Amino acid sequence: MNETPSPVPARLSERELHALDAHWRAANYLAAGQIYLLANPLLREPLRAEHIKPRLLGHWGTSPGLNLVHTHLNRAIAARDLDTICVWGPGHGGPAVLAGSWLDGSYTDTYPGVTRDAEGMAKLFRQFSFPGGVPSHVAPETPGSIHEGGELGYALSHAYGAALDNPGLLVACVIGDGEAETGPLAASWHGNKFLDPVHDGAVLPILHLNGYKIANPTVLARIPEPELDSLLRGLGHLPLYVSGDDPLTVHRELAEAMDLALDRIAALQDEARTGGSTRRPHWPLIVLRTPKGWTGPAEVDGVPVEGTWRAHQVPLDQVRSNPAHLAQLEAWLRSYRPEELFDELGRPTAEVLACVPEGGRRLGANRHANGGLLLRELPLPPLETYEVPVDKPGRTLHEPTRVLGDLLADLMAATAERRDFRLVGPDETASNRLQAVYGVTGKAWQADTLPVDEHLARDGRVMEILSEHTCQGWLEGYLLTGRHGLFSCYEAFVHLVDSMVNQHIKWLRTTRALPWRAPIASLNYLLTSHVWRQDHNGFSHQDPGFVDHVLNKSPEAVRVYFPPDANTLLATADHVLRSRDYVNVVVAGKQPCFDWLGLDEARAHCARGAGIWEWAGTEDGVREPDVVLACAGDVPTQEVLAAAGLLRRHLPELAVRVVNVVDLARLMPAEEHPHGMPDAEFDALFTRERPVVFAYHGYPWLIHRLAYRRAVHPNLHVRGYKESGTTTTPFDMVVRNDLDRYRLVMDVIDRVPGLAVRAAGLRQEMADRRTRHDAWIREHGTDLPEVADWSWQD
Amino acid sequence: MNETPSPVPARLSERELHALDAHWRAANYLAAGQIYLLANPLLREPLRAEHIKPRLLGHWGTSPGLNLVHTHLNRAIAARDLDTICVWGPGHGGPAVLAGSWLDGSYTDTYPGVTRDAEGMAKLFRQFSFPGGVPSHVAPETPGSIHEGGELGYALSHAYGAALDNPGLLVACVIGDGEAETGPLAASWHGNKFLDPVHDGAVLPILHLNGYKIANPTVLARIPEPELDSLLRGLGHLPLYVSGDDPLTVHRELAEAMDLALDRIAALQDEARTGGSTRRPHWPLIVLRTPKGWTGPAEVDGVPVEGTWRAHQVPLDQVRSNPAHLAQLEAWLRSYRPEELFDELGRPTAEVLACVPEGGRRLGANRHANGGLLLRELPLPPLETYEVPVDKPGRTLHEPTRVLGDLLADLMAATAERRDFRLVGPDETASNRLQAVYGVTGKAWQADTLPVDEHLARDGRVMEILSEHTCQGWLEGYLLTGRHGLFSCYEAFVHLVDSMVNQHIKWLRTTRALPWRAPIASLNYLLTSHVWRQDHNGFSHQDPGFVDHVLNKSPEAVRVYFPPDANTLLATADHVLRSRDYVNVVVAGKQPCFDWLGLDEARAHCARGAGIWEWAGTEDGVREPDVVLACAGDVPTQEVLAAAGLLRRHLPELAVRVVNVVDLARLMPAEEHPHGMPDAEFDALFTRERPVVFAYHGYPWLIHRLAYRRAVHPNLHVRGYKESGTTTTPFDMVVRNDLDRYRLVMDVIDRVPGLAVRAAGLRQEMADRRTRHDAWIREHGTDLPEVADWSWQD
Repeated sequence: MNETPSPVPARLSERELHALDAHWRAANYLAAGQIYLLANPLLREPLRAEHIKPRLLGHWGTSPGLNLVHTHLNRAIAARDLDTICVWGPGHGGPAVLAGSWLDGSYTDTYPGVTRDAEGMAKLFRQFSFPGGVPSHVAPETPGSIHEGGELGYALSHAYGAALDNPGLLVACVIGDGEAETGPLAASWHGNKFLDPVHDGAVLPILHLNGYKIANPTVLARIPEPELDSLLRGLGHLPLYVSGDDPLTVHRELAEAMDLALDRIAALQDEARTGGSTRRPHWPLIVLRTPKGWTGPAEVDGVPVEGTWRAHQVPLDQVRSNPAHLAQLEAWLRSYRPEELFDELGRPTAEVLACVPEGGRRLGANRHANGGLLLRELPLPPLETYEVPVDKPGRTLHEPTRVLGDLLADLMAATAERRDFRLVGPDETASNRLQAVYGVTGKAWQADTLPVDEHLARDGRVMEILSEHTCQGWLEGYLLTGRHGLFSCYEAFVHLVDSMVNQHIKWLRTTRALPWRAPIASLNYLLTSHVWRQDHNGFSHQDPGFVDHVLNKSPEAVRVYFPPDANTLLATADHVLRSRDYVNVVVAGKQPCFDWLGLDEARAHCARGAGIWEWAGTEDGVREPDVVLACAGDVPTQEVLAAAGLLRRHLPELAVRVVNVVDLARLMPAEEHPHGMPDAEFDALFTRERPVVFAYHGYPWLIHRLAYRRAVHPNLHVRGYKESGTTTTPFDMVVRNDLDRYRLVMDVIDRVPGLAVRAAGLRQEMADRRTRHDAWIREHGTDLPEVADWSWQD
Repeated sequence: MNETPSPVPARLSERELHALDAHWRAANYLAAGQIYLLANPLLREPLRAEHIKPRLLGHWGTSPGLNLVHTHLNRAIAARDLDTICVWGPGHGGPAVLAGSWLDGSYTDTYPGVTRDAEGMAKLFRQFSFPGGVPSHVAPETPGSIHEGGELGYALSHAYGAALDNPGLLVACVIGDGEAETGPLAASWHGNKFLDPVHDGAVLPILHLNGYKIANPTVLARIPEPELDSLLRGLGHLPLYVSGDDPLTVHRELAEAMDLALDRIAALQDEARTGGSTRRPHWPLIVLRTPKGWTGPAEVDGVPVEGTWRAHQVPLDQVRSNPAHLAQLEAWLRSYRPEELFDELGRPTAEVLACVPEGGRRLGANRHANGGLLLRELPLPPLETYEVPVDKPGRTLHEPTRVLGDLLADLMAATAERRDFRLVGPDETASNRLQAVYGVTGKAWQADTLPVDEHLARDGRVMEILSEHTCQGWLEGYLLTGRHGLFSCYEAFVHLVDSMVNQHIKWLRTTRALPWRAPIASLNYLLTSHVWRQDHNGFSHQDPGFVDHVLNKSPEAVRVYFPPDANTLLATADHVLRSRDYVNVVVAGKQPCFDWLGLDEARAHCARGAGIWEWAGTEDGVREPDVVLACAGDVPTQEVLAAAGLLRRHLPELAVRVVNVVDLARLMPAEEHPHGMPDAEFDALFTRERPVVFAYHGYPWLIHRLAYRRAVHPNLHVRGYKESGTTTTPFDMVVRNDLDRYRLVMDVIDRVPGLAVRAAGLRQEMADRRTRHDAWIREHGTDLPEVADWSWQD
């Protein structure tokens, strides 16, 4: 841990040094130009107000630092022929990354209209943060990026995700000192305890201390350097420091630090790969301390700007109306000496481009940052191998996620050589009954082990850390670079990543419209240990609202599934693992659950997404049913079938239809979601005017919001979770939330015309059973025997 | 930073040592008893299967460690007469904290039915995790707690929040090594850069390394101790280590470490308070390394349990059916020698209670953990001081949050001595235009400062760190200990705390039903920099869904407000700051916004929560309106008023009603939310069958889900944000999302019978203006002059 770097490598020649500086100056010029200029891009004429954009938008402060890293990564990549991508944590510094891409030619490769000359430069400037142009951040539209960076916190976990199973890849990662204060970033430092130096690539964190956030100093920039050093070493890194505000000195030091870091990475990889070392590497990390808004206006209107938080966005904001500001902007832009950087046609000079690597090595052109190009079909095994036999529905029980675990184990085996499938989760893989995978691969772990440990492995492809944020970040990074995965999570705590999934969906929604972005594997959630089965944990672990959250997002990128048993879970998993560019949310139980459908039926049912379970109802096939009992989710399905059984026994003349919904978006209008049912189909399933009693897994009003336009909606009555929970039995949970079989029968009686009188006795009996349950459970702590022993009788 | 602790304090006498061990054994016995025993609590007869609970639920693994801390905190509190609360991070170890409370008598004080004797012990055991009993976690029902601990990550930020402005308080905080992996916890270590040793109390983190999570080793337990030491020192602490598995040795070492830590805390406080030191203290921290499930079964069925992850929940889980397990449980329980710990009546012996402090010093009885008892009314200034004069609606512009900032500044001044109001936010107080507060108090900051810094102050009461999780945790801890506050946050990124606010709402919902819990101040969010005004940031910063999220939660604890201008924001802020036991979400803009209502009108409008703006409509007061234009949110209100103006000019004979909604829950049925409107009131406002065009700030379907039961619902047409965003002008944003004035006029024409033909020309003109906007903005980058210059003309 206290090792120091090896001797100083060869120093830059003066010529190299000045070429690096030329590239950096060019990038800084281009970044400032994007924020300010509507015309006169090369300053071939004196700057006038009409050359300035009417609305000045963007973030200058972080841009010079990002440009500096870009310049020096270029040098290192070219010198060492590295396969490298960079995760730009301060992605709001979009002007910088766009500048780098334009300079290395990848921008023009991607958008041929924006040429690498004066005309293209004018377009590059104009389009930035301009209506109809490009966003102000590093966005999906930005070549070479897998990371938006508007919402801070995810840079380092994205970087680790990208490096996993990419042994030849170097992932540089710029971490702003603002971002370093966030929880997700703070947790993600421990990624280095999970990165296998043999099978994974390297991550080179570059902690950029420019000292300020929007309006405040940052914590890490304001603790003494020995304390910072202690922190970074305690996080398992070997820090290398570069700081200053003299460009040439900083260029020299950063080039040296970069060389030291890359030498050390190569040595550590070699030690592990050919030397057989199994010690956990202490990877290098660069601390880069340079002024915020470096090279921008030192002072504006008498107050310091460069090197302060005031440089965060637009340092001079009255340029069109204040001639002094205009003059100051012109002086600032001319300080980069654009006439030395761009030729008469506006093309970057050879000196500027001297450091830039070639072809696919360019940061803007690396295929790992357009991962769909590298994506292979998963070798999914035939589902028949895992099928649960179902002679008659509802007679046998299986734990659905355990059945899925067998499939995942075989998928792990089939990808053992390819290494392009990972399972992530916050310490819950076994709790969620997926432990069969451990027979094939271990849990990634590079820290110390003890003899008592089980299933830990340096090369394991199950990733467990008690941080949903880190799990999500790893998986996103892994998917965005062209691989596959599944995130298994307690249902309630997936809300921890609400904001992260927002950003990923926004990314997918945008990339779907970019033809040059190849589709990537979907982000698949398996939400289990769900609201109805929190026997050990109770109220704090009960929240089915993630589905509501994702269904607010772009419908083209969001799918939600509620497979009601083991075989439907198999069919759903097979589907989502083959899909592209979605966020798929699969909610399924880990507790023993009745088997309802054989595999063929399950496949057909899942393909339809919603359908009538004829065997469960009492329709005569001629007239419309008297009532529809609908369900979505494993526990609601069980209660609906139990209610249907009670109705069949006690009101055999009632025509009951049972509808099960797997794919929740089918309830939406066809115009609002690609899976939405046309009205005719919806009406055929749910009728136009019969009472519908819908037992739903989550918050009941979600069903109303999906179905409010349907003809039957005035007669739709939904039961679901209504925040009534504690540590209790599963059946008590449904009683507390009025989702139990007895209440559903009462709902039917209350809603079918004429039944109120005819079935008054049955209704009373149902109410009595609820009361009996209540007394029984408070005395015995268990469910009524009639409930505990129930199974479907056809 | 490299200081070492002062000399070893006086050692424990043998008698003290054995008394501490007796307390710990008693607590362990009680914890295990809660998990297992339905009867025979004192093992006065041989243990039989029928004494065992039918369902074995709970978490044993962390309990011995929590008990150990409880025992030693007791000793220290009693010895030093400390005012102390403890935040139990591993709150799922409920049996431990309940045991400690029962032993110190606070449980019986709170629940007199559970006496501190054999009968009470039987109740304590039976009720645990039993239907109708108490939850398995440290819950609101648990005396002495402000922290549930089921969702991990918030212990340390809660502790810091509790310590702020409580200079006499010591907040001990147990951090499990599982919790330490989470992002929110990882970020919250930096709380020590914000804690003022003069005006705030002390936080004593106790990092408990029991080595395992649910099924895995933990990262911090498996890095070499020098690396851990470096990390903790880098986080600004002076670590003290206690480790072992021999109880008496660990008792001795922990007592010493506790004394060292408390001496150091006292010395640091003294140095700052009387010595005038302004250096940032390096507070002590205890690292406690003891086995998971310590003193429980060493092995079960031949595999190790004690000291492994297998001890996490219930170590012996077949006790009722497997006689060997039953025998092992009996041996385990008897190993604590209950006959030495409890007298013939089941009361703890004097030896067991020797360490327990008295009265309000007991951890289960400290008033800070029932903060409502300490709560004082806020000295809110009269709103008239800040009133924006409104002669005529829509003629002047103000930034609503800036107006609010003046009020908050005066509130800060009025609480300067009391120090019971804080403003928190992730580096956005000034960005959100609340910077007037800096005239009164600074931003809390104990790290290094530079001459260029502004508004940083050791004793500042504005808290800014770029971690929404930490902000939320601080504020929760502050409120739960009886103080007041406001969290100002970018609207999109408040989703980062979705899961935290879930837990806080669950806490409030539960405490509202506990008569002994005094009401606390509401958790108030000011969401600004909202979806419609992300000119600099675009799509990544656009998400109005937090409102949807909180409205899924217990309605008794949730309120949502959309004040449409400055005076309504004042009235709303005044209301929410006076309220108790709610989560209030206030969404308001920071950009210049038309002033619609004078203060008196604003007060009346906010009190109603929704109302007709007669001056904006064209009703004759006799017949029902032809159409209702409804709005919620500042930008939608502006567009609705502009649409109303267009209709007044072009279709003067049309009777238009304008309804503005401030309090969103008013749309809900009266049975579903305390603010819900009765149908008659709703119908009087919105009519029963006229077309309603509703312009809403957020996702449009939320309005449908709130209003689907209303008579007018089939005629309700909602416009809102539909995930169409980028960096563009505010007006372009509403056009992209079909919420603009022209589209609203078209909606009216499309929905009012007869208008389609009569107003076809106007409809076309509106469509043309949208097209013109589109062309204009793409050329000029600005809005159409007619939009930019618009103001309401009555």
